[in-house]
Amino acid sequence: MADIKKADRKLKYWGWGYEDAGLDGDQTKALLATFADGFGINPSRDGAFPTLDAIELPKCRLEAPASLEDVCTDDKFERVYHAFGQSQPDSLRTYAGDFDHAPDIVAFPETERHIAEIYEWAGKTNAAVIPWGAGSSVVGGVTSDVGSKYNGVISVDMGRMNKVLEVDEVSRAARIQGGALGPDLEAQLKPHGLTLRHFPQSFQHSTFGGWIATRSGGHFATLYTHIDDLVEATTTVTPAGDIVSRRLPGSGAGPSPDRFVALGSEGALGIITEGWARLQGRPTYKATAGYRFTDFFDAARAVRAVSQAGLYPANVRIVDGTELQVNGAGDGSFTLMVVSFESADHPVDAWMERAEECCLDHGGTVDVPWRDNPDAHLQGAVGAWRTAFIRMPYNREQLTPRGIISDTFETAITWDRFEEFYGAIKDATQSAIRDVTGHDGAVSCRFSHAYPDGPAPYFAFHAPGDPQNMLAQWQELKTRASDALIKHGGTITHHHAVGRDHQKWYEQQRPALFGDVIGDAKKRLDPKGVLNPGVIVG
Amino acid sequence: MADIKKADRKLKYWGWGYEDAGLDGDQTKALLATFADGFGINPSRDGAFPTLDAIELPKCRLEAPASLEDVCTDDKFERVYHAFGQSQPDSLRTYAGDFDHAPDIVAFPETERHIAEIYEWAGKTNAAVIPWGAGSSVVGGVTSDVGSKYNGVISVDMGRMNKVLEVDEVSRAARIQGGALGPDLEAQLKPHGLTLRHFPQSFQHSTFGGWIATRSGGHFATLYTHIDDLVEATTTVTPAGDIVSRRLPGSGAGPSPDRFVALGSEGALGIITEGWARLQGRPTYKATAGYRFTDFFDAARAVRAVSQAGLYPANVRIVDGTELQVNGAGDGSFTLMVVSFESADHPVDAWMERAEECCLDHGGTVDVPWRDNPDAHLQGAVGAWRTAFIRMPYNREQLTPRGIISDTFETAITWDRFEEFYGAIKDATQSAIRDVTGHDGAVSCRFSHAYPDGPAPYFAFHAPGDPQNMLAQWQELKTRASDALIKHGGTITHHHAVGRDHQKWYEQQRPALFGDVIGDAKKRLDPKGVLNPGVIVG
Repeated sequence: MADIKKADRKLKYWGWGYEDAGLDGDQTKALLATFADGFGINPSRDGAFPTLDAIELPKCRLEAPASLEDVCTDDKFERVYHAFGQSQPDSLRTYAGDFDHAPDIVAFPETERHIAEIYEWAGKTNAAVIPWGAGSSVVGGVTSDVGSKYNGVISVDMGRMNKVLEVDEVSRAARIQGGALGPDLEAQLKPHGLTLRHFPQSFQHSTFGGWIATRSGGHFATLYTHIDDLVEATTTVTPAGDIVSRRLPGSGAGPSPDRFVALGSEGALGIITEGWARLQGRPTYKATAGYRFTDFFDAARAVRAVSQAGLYPANVRIVDGTELQVNGAGDGSFTLMVVSFESADHPVDAWMERAEECCLDHGGTVDVPWRDNPDAHLQGAVGAWRTAFIRMPYNREQLTPRGIISDTFETAITWDRFEEFYGAIKDATQSAIRDVTGHDGAVSCRFSHAYPDGPAPYFAFHAPGDPQNMLAQWQELKTRASDALIKHGGTITHHHAVGRDHQKWYEQQRPALFGDVIGDAKKRLDPKGVLNPGVIVG
Repeated sequence: MADIKKADRKLKYWGWGYEDAGLDGDQTKALLATFADGFGINPSRDGAFPTLDAIELPKCRLEAPASLEDVCTDDKFERVYHAFGQSQPDSLRTYAGDFDHAPDIVAFPETERHIAEIYEWAGKTNAAVIPWGAGSSVVGGVTSDVGSKYNGVISVDMGRMNKVLEVDEVSRAARIQGGALGPDLEAQLKPHGLTLRHFPQSFQHSTFGGWIATRSGGHFATLYTHIDDLVEATTTVTPAGDIVSRRLPGSGAGPSPDRFVALGSEGALGIITEGWARLQGRPTYKATAGYRFTDFFDAARAVRAVSQAGLYPANVRIVDGTELQVNGAGDGSFTLMVVSFESADHPVDAWMERAEECCLDHGGTVDVPWRDNPDAHLQGAVGAWRTAFIRMPYNREQLTPRGIISDTFETAITWDRFEEFYGAIKDATQSAIRDVTGHDGAVSCRFSHAYPDGPAPYFAFHAPGDPQNMLAQWQELKTRASDALIKHGGTITHHHAVGRDHQKWYEQQRPALFGDVIGDAKKRLDPKGVLNPGVIVG
């Protein structure tokens, strides 16, 4: 098999991003001090992730056919790297050296034909196929643990199909391959003065195809922030053939193919090899402001007012006191609201002025003013939060070895039910932490997105774990939080996707008969059931 | 069976709306003069639609089970009225007294249980079930002509399930029954200061459920104008059971059920009995302006500029010279562009100013100014076009008896291909009219909707028909125009839906494998194949 070299910078198999990126010593100290001082959460161990040498892999059970030899490898690092995504249990199992389920082969297809050949091969040998964008799933969507029904596992890394193939500057759209990473596709669009402007927190290590498969939500809080709305057409390669939708700005011809076989399909129906995406001009006018609220619900009402005003800010986001404190951006005494507008076309003053009125009307006070302040996004609590937000994905690799449980979950709910819902979810999570760990832990909340009819609350929880039992502890916490989400009318996921970790609750949330319809689609498109078993179709 | 009374105002079976509404004598004269003087299109006959007495109906083949007796009728008017929608062939066949296919029974269910019982009855007797919102389909979507495979036809009129069941003023959403007509649901929302603000041209005679089933597009040209985006949750009653989606402002949990079994299902998968819809505040700030362009493509470029500026006007619409002339709103020498903004929250001056710059930059001159002009929408070409637009659905009942072919079709295309596409579609339609009728006819175009990545062009064509052969003539014109749409990359429908008239081209446009997936869904949800045969699933 081929000796496959990746980019110059080596990726971590035990955490987020490249080996040379992460928290430095001082940042780690500060993080641990925040937990200890603010919440009484102290390390319960001081361990380390296993080295590559120390990890034992089962023997590779598969041999690539000749036509795929050049794009397949059983290299140890690749098998280890592709065994897990970025979830809390992924981190815990990596720490434990639990790699029995690692993929036998990692394939790096370069063409649709390669993918079709992988399906054929998998069908013949009864191997599972795990589509892999860049492995940023926090819900077990790429974890190659498929049980004993398969004779092998092939992780299909789309990293070589990473080009922007065509740019249409007139319509502002581009044809982009599924394996293009966020930064790579933006770099290819930049010379055209255009941007996809889709910035999920995973931006650096997630792909265009992965965004579509998981119905990704971007950093922006309103309007065109979901990949759903940015997709003009898709090409999905399934074991039964290709599904290529027509490139159209809008269509009312029957149910949308993009919205069924591509968006939300999570690798269970096919692999999205390319798509046409809607682009925007690169913003030149920007304004950001920060407001403090002593009451979290007042802040939520301000978000509602701005969301229902038809202003469509780039951001309208609140971060509760605990979430600020956990991230070193506040002392816990206030909720922060960030509002920002951007435009490639016109000054945004009129928009910003009206949004500020909404914030002040609901009891906000200015933390960072927007007028004549181009650096607002770097100042005060706004800037501190921004720095923490960018750094956040690197925290877990420091916390897992120290026995601190650290996870997030996110949902959406209509405004009428929000306050009760927020209380119920927070209580359920907090009491679960007390029951499971004997400590209070920290449960915090921010809004990731805001709609006229409701917010998307994003919860984080931290607790000191029992080193011998952390995976089971996490599972219990996850179960009780997820049960509460479903019971109180939320969605099990707003933009993190279903994956293996949410499948049980997804099946409760999804209308049963619609589940049957998806099952039929699975049988039609993936008749041998090789694609991402256990995800979307149970 | 029950003696079923409808509302006080009697509906026409031969045309649009109520018997007491339509063009008066002068308006009809003016319409005919416009065609004769402007385009040499003269009446080729002076006939009349058949009276109800003159129409012969086949004997009713079905008998309602006892449990449905109160909600079923074989009343002659109801059977005649429910035999056709509002398409050109529907009008021609009504004129010809072609009612052999009329439904045997018209049912007016009052509950989901009634609908389930209708399915059972239909399954047992092998009768076809035609879901009927308010019969405004212009594409044969409710035409009860299902061929000889069925032992009867039941038209299911949703008119008794017409309530707004719940209003959530906090989230701005309402639970609305599928059979609620546009004006009725707006009247029920008005006391709450809220509006669905979905105004398709068919508004008066179309329903919430019909809008969802056909992916309706509202009058507004940008942003939240499609019912797709206004739907928060749906209840679809299928022969296999109910599909009830969860009420959520947003969700990334797998493929969207609303987007597959409700939106675009066109009565082939189930009947949408209710849904939660997103509402808006009733606009209090409004501004409208009109601009003239000597070049149609300059006007299109101005639409593109406004659409890509991120301003999201309520309207940004162009109407070409011919379309203005056909409707008595221009002399054919200029294209009109209408721009308007609305808000329930804030003055719209800043938005309007920037949009006006875009129009003037592209060579527009002011036809109707917006500043300090609350009656702008009633003035100049803008007002004349508006009057014609409201009256338009009443034209055909004057034209069919006079042997004048009158139809519209609509599509969408990305901006990069628009100019060539427009030329190709116009040429194909015009040369088809010449070949088929020996006259030039009139082919005109406006934009119904505008997206950042492309417009939705809406074409109208008029031609003098051969009284003996009008249906075949229309079919040839429709075929050649539709062939051109598909060949040149457009969609067969942007918001008119598929129905029976577009099925052939829809099947060309739709990815074949996705067609199989829909076929599987049909088998799952409607195993006996009773629902709207020939629509969506061929």
